[in-house]
Amino acid sequence: MYKKKNLGISGQSLLLLGIILMMLILPVSAATPEENAEAIADVQTALTVVWLILCGGIVFLMHAGFSLVEIGLTRVKNTTNILMKNFMTVCLGIVVYWVMGWALMYGADYAGIIGSDQFFMSGADNAIWTSWWFQMVFAATGATIVSGAMAERTSFKAYLIYTVLMVGLIYPVFGHWVWSGAGILTSGPIVDAIGIGYHDFAGSSVVHMIGGFSALAGVLLVGPRIGKFRHGKPVVIPGHSLPLAFLGTLILAFGWVGFNGGSTLDGNDPYIGLVIANTFLAAGAGAIMVLLITWMKTGKPDPSLTANGMLAGLVAITASCGSVASWAAVIIGLIAGIIVYVGVMFNEYTLKLDDPVGAIAVHGYSGAWGILSVGIFAIGQGNGIFADAAYTAAGAGLLYGGYQQFMIQVVGLILAVIWAFGISFIIFKVLDAVMGLRVPEEDEIAGLDIKEHGMSAYPEFVLAKE
Amino acid sequence: MYKKKNLGISGQSLLLLGIILMMLILPVSAATPEENAEAIADVQTALTVVWLILCGGIVFLMHAGFSLVEIGLTRVKNTTNILMKNFMTVCLGIVVYWVMGWALMYGADYAGIIGSDQFFMSGADNAIWTSWWFQMVFAATGATIVSGAMAERTSFKAYLIYTVLMVGLIYPVFGHWVWSGAGILTSGPIVDAIGIGYHDFAGSSVVHMIGGFSALAGVLLVGPRIGKFRHGKPVVIPGHSLPLAFLGTLILAFGWVGFNGGSTLDGNDPYIGLVIANTFLAAGAGAIMVLLITWMKTGKPDPSLTANGMLAGLVAITASCGSVASWAAVIIGLIAGIIVYVGVMFNEYTLKLDDPVGAIAVHGYSGAWGILSVGIFAIGQGNGIFADAAYTAAGAGLLYGGYQQFMIQVVGLILAVIWAFGISFIIFKVLDAVMGLRVPEEDEIAGLDIKEHGMSAYPEFVLAKE
Amino acid sequence: MYKKKNLGISGQSLLLLGIILMMLILPVSAATPEENAEAIADVQTALTVVWLILCGGIVFLMHAGFSLVEIGLTRVKNTTNILMKNFMTVCLGIVVYWVMGWALMYGADYAGIIGSDQFFMSGADNAIWTSWWFQMVFAATGATIVSGAMAERTSFKAYLIYTVLMVGLIYPVFGHWVWSGAGILTSGPIVDAIGIGYHDFAGSSVVHMIGGFSALAGVLLVGPRIGKFRHGKPVVIPGHSLPLAFLGTLILAFGWVGFNGGSTLDGNDPYIGLVIANTFLAAGAGAIMVLLITWMKTGKPDPSLTANGMLAGLVAITASCGSVASWAAVIIGLIAGIIVYVGVMFNEYTLKLDDPVGAIAVHGYSGAWGILSVGIFAIGQGNGIFADAAYTAAGAGLLYGGYQQFMIQVVGLILAVIWAFGISFIIFKVLDAVMGLRVPEEDEIAGLDIKEHGMSAYPEFVLAKE
Repeated sequence: MYKKKNLGISGQSLLLLGIILMMLILPVSAATPEENAEAIADVQTALTVVWLILCGGIVFLMHAGFSLVEIGLTRVKNTTNILMKNFMTVCLGIVVYWVMGWALMYGADYAGIIGSDQFFMSGADNAIWTSWWFQMVFAATGATIVSGAMAERTSFKAYLIYTVLMVGLIYPVFGHWVWSGAGILTSGPIVDAIGIGYHDFAGSSVVHMIGGFSALAGVLLVGPRIGKFRHGKPVVIPGHSLPLAFLGTLILAFGWVGFNGGSTLDGNDPYIGLVIANTFLAAGAGAIMVLLITWMKTGKPDPSLTANGMLAGLVAITASCGSVASWAAVIIGLIAGIIVYVGVMFNEYTLKLDDPVGAIAVHGYSGAWGILSVGIFAIGQGNGIFADAAYTAAGAGLLYGGYQQFMIQVVGLILAVIWAFGISFIIFKVLDAVMGLRVPEEDEIAGLDIKEHGMSAYPEFVLAKE
Repeated sequence: MYKKKNLGISGQSLLLLGIILMMLILPVSAATPEENAEAIADVQTALTVVWLILCGGIVFLMHAGFSLVEIGLTRVKNTTNILMKNFMTVCLGIVVYWVMGWALMYGADYAGIIGSDQFFMSGADNAIWTSWWFQMVFAATGATIVSGAMAERTSFKAYLIYTVLMVGLIYPVFGHWVWSGAGILTSGPIVDAIGIGYHDFAGSSVVHMIGGFSALAGVLLVGPRIGKFRHGKPVVIPGHSLPLAFLGTLILAFGWVGFNGGSTLDGNDPYIGLVIANTFLAAGAGAIMVLLITWMKTGKPDPSLTANGMLAGLVAITASCGSVASWAAVIIGLIAGIIVYVGVMFNEYTLKLDDPVGAIAVHGYSGAWGILSVGIFAIGQGNGIFADAAYTAAGAGLLYGGYQQFMIQVVGLILAVIWAFGISFIIFKVLDAVMGLRVPEEDEIAGLDIKEHGMSAYPEFVLAKE
Repeated sequence: MYKKKNLGISGQSLLLLGIILMMLILPVSAATPEENAEAIADVQTALTVVWLILCGGIVFLMHAGFSLVEIGLTRVKNTTNILMKNFMTVCLGIVVYWVMGWALMYGADYAGIIGSDQFFMSGADNAIWTSWWFQMVFAATGATIVSGAMAERTSFKAYLIYTVLMVGLIYPVFGHWVWSGAGILTSGPIVDAIGIGYHDFAGSSVVHMIGGFSALAGVLLVGPRIGKFRHGKPVVIPGHSLPLAFLGTLILAFGWVGFNGGSTLDGNDPYIGLVIANTFLAAGAGAIMVLLITWMKTGKPDPSLTANGMLAGLVAITASCGSVASWAAVIIGLIAGIIVYVGVMFNEYTLKLDDPVGAIAVHGYSGAWGILSVGIFAIGQGNGIFADAAYTAAGAGLLYGGYQQFMIQVVGLILAVIWAFGISFIIFKVLDAVMGLRVPEEDEIAGLDIKEHGMSAYPEFVLAKE
């Protein structure tokens, strides 16, 4: 049926043929056990590649989710600007993580602090490209979190430069500490003193706390939007499209299938099912908790806070989903719901911070809770349901009588806060001095879309006067 | 390159290393054929896990699709409410299916009627978590279908309670009858009498008919929206966003890759390709049929009915996609298109029902057609293209001279209608008596968004007066 | 735990049981090496099936992406019409590719020009259905590209007929030339003369150039929208929803994971990671280049052009992603960014063409660049990082001292332009004569939504006067 000659040449056709042949012609020559063992190992590797490529793709789509949540919860007049920020975050993220992000994160270790080779992926072989892809889609997320918290008043140019530094420096350095295997949180003096290594399965700290506490620095420095506080009281500035905000939230939740599932890093892992179940149990529990809190407090269940409740549950379980039982995942999610509600209120009413999308509470505070939750609920290696999972937290949590895991989690949490807040504070200060972090007052009032991009997001729709 | 010491501790790094090692170091020690056979079985299982986790994720995303279709086809003033209903359906669904849904569906059988253990997933091992995930994402779908049919006038609180009962009781009980292997539709006296078991591959009845006929009960009890019927004639109430409705429809179609594909429950199944081809052939055929009907009837092809035509094709083929030839899939889709058109007209003009999104026709009537289509078009086990598929319908359909499969399909169809309509009717009656099923008239006129959630969906856009 | 009797009958339950059994009961009987080798081959095939089904699903979702980009960049009054066009493109595409598209593309070769059997997929076995699915989701894309370029003034009926011919004839014929293995571009006199076959990995020409240059023919014949040119100068007609345009762009980028990744056609391919990395490096680079160009030219980075920059990078790398090093992918993307910018300006200012979404530049011109890029940057079989990939371009590119690959790429490029432009020009001419290609002026001014479908896309929103 399929083509005749010159088979070595065409692209798709050859393999199409291959598939069909594979079905028709079963291996006739005798295979040795050694050859079989090799072939099995190849299939195992191939399954991991397929798993990580697809999971990475699903994580990539989270950038659409972040975009939609951020524009959904902010005003029409800044929509184009936010879309462009999120879009360029991905685009710059891809290139910068190729230029230097991977190198600083996974290059040859220097003093447990930083990677030091493989710039421009030099020396990369095929196995590394799959890893690069999966790690890269995580890298730009930190910057996106920051963009949400600082939305509606931050300079586009300053943000882009910050993004390059986030993907190229801030994220990879902390990532090196936690995930390179040679970093200060999994080997060296700190770990030797406590006796056990830090555990952050898929990034409650590496991705979310780094993003959330960097956002805290940015929000402090850029200040609240005009009109956000009147006589010291926060004023509600409603988002312009709840449909987009909820669509974004569900795309993000879908993304967590790849985010946490893929972080098993092994398509042959027998615990993927529990990792995913834990992830979504926490998600559901977080949303339910916020629904109940806002319903009881105000008589009306609050939509955007409830959506943030799901995200908080997801962020929190990200560290612990490979180490805890399913009932613990429910509790972790419920508490994350409380934390995000209290956190948003604390930021607005006590700290007088203006974080339009609640990113600091969702990613920073819930991320911190996720890190601690490992130290509380982890079953510990060799016990129970994660018995022989290589990636589960090594130590048992407080609930199971362990204390070392909790101690190192506290250390890691503190390092994450100091590093993210500190370095971002410095960078934003410098950017502010050099080019101004905040747009001029008139631009903010008119909206960043026209001023920065010359294009409004919905030019044909009539808008209400503010 | 990658990390040095303390490898047992870090999360991602260890397996990252593992991947790379796997590429570099091929197994050197001699493997026995027995060890190889074990390793092969493990890879087969792992492939199934990866397949079901990803398919489940894709099905999860269908909740975004349902949300968008429902808000797209209804009015601005109820958008927040519908978003919240759909969102909480997922969140509650996850937790409730963990608490009791799985137990009643797949727990130890009691009299062919109901499962009776594994509450809170007690006793779950790793294999079950993957199954739980895949089954769970199906469970909340039934309630979502109901929410669409009853949109724009149903109390948020009553709906949430109903959702808990749908996911925790209505769906799992019927699911037990069909998919547990011990239920009355696949074993016991009915099956013995007819001589063959009921077949519903991926849920034309278990998911869609249960949702659709529950919706019928709800719509009857809650009554039409104010203004839907004038002098006994239905009035068109256009949806507020066709872009969201179509995006939702395409997301739902994408979801069917996981819905039907994943229902092979085996990543090693050689028939997945045909299952998916059948699925999409029916989808395309359904839409084409409605396009032609509405074009001929009114001179203008109707967008929302055409979108429902695709969904009707998908719903119908859900039962039969693993049992029929591709030409039959096209016919099943074409007939589903006719059914959904006639069904919508029948509901509006004859029964005077108000189903804003056409859920009863799409899920109920087309689902019933899907169940019958198995009894008509099934090739039967051992014949033709599904020759050795374990899951294909056991009996040949009417077209191939069989009649037993058709008989048991009729029995199952009747049971689905009775169970879904009956139990939902009772539950809605009780809810109505206890707390009121319908919002007050003034809330309905003002819109549920402000009254129930204090937040409009698009606060900055100027809307036309009704 | 799971069900007892009658196991051969029920659908899901049997395999659910199977999964669990697979975990519990390891093979006890001694397996021979031959049996193991067979089982391994089956798993390899199964992994390919899972890979292609999921990648095909992701490509299917691209139709949602195309829809959103097109409506986002056009006006409210034609939104319903564009949604319907894109939706029916998929629906017709599925059925037409089943009836004849596959047959003409992959049926028994006739003279290197066209396939000639397997109509209605007669003779299809299971392996072919997976291939059909993956090829089918590509097929409708060409028509969708055309619909974007001709948006806001083309007759719905004429477009649908064109779509049938695109999916059933135009696309499969060129596809036969390139991907069937027996076509004139990979075997026969042309190839013998040059000494090497044409290479288009995933469709820079087969999908994108065919779509783009068909669009060029259509745009020439249908003419610009009323008001697009005033005194010979192009007037900006802004799109009505940037959020939908950007969401669409990100969904399309996600789709490329399946588009390029799946085009390895083998789940066991060890180069998938690099294929994907190349794909996204070009995407990021394309967007960055356009951002910089528009920023420098106008002082304001242009959102819709920047989004098109990403798409241009993706289109260009589609041919070469399986043949070039990662640094080359970055360069290919950067140049694609220049090409799409210059191409859009050239079309508007020099050729006076009205292509509302920039489809000709994105798909036609960047696609052509992608084809040439293979001839410039390909490493060549047996060299470097794609050493033993069967699908990589056979010849080395100009940069590596080869010239034959470049020559055949130029030949293929010319054939693609001639075929797509020529056949589409003829078809559109005939359609215009028979039924009119363009809607009446009054319909265009009023908008196609009301006139063609009787339904506006956002009926409740107040719109600004034009």
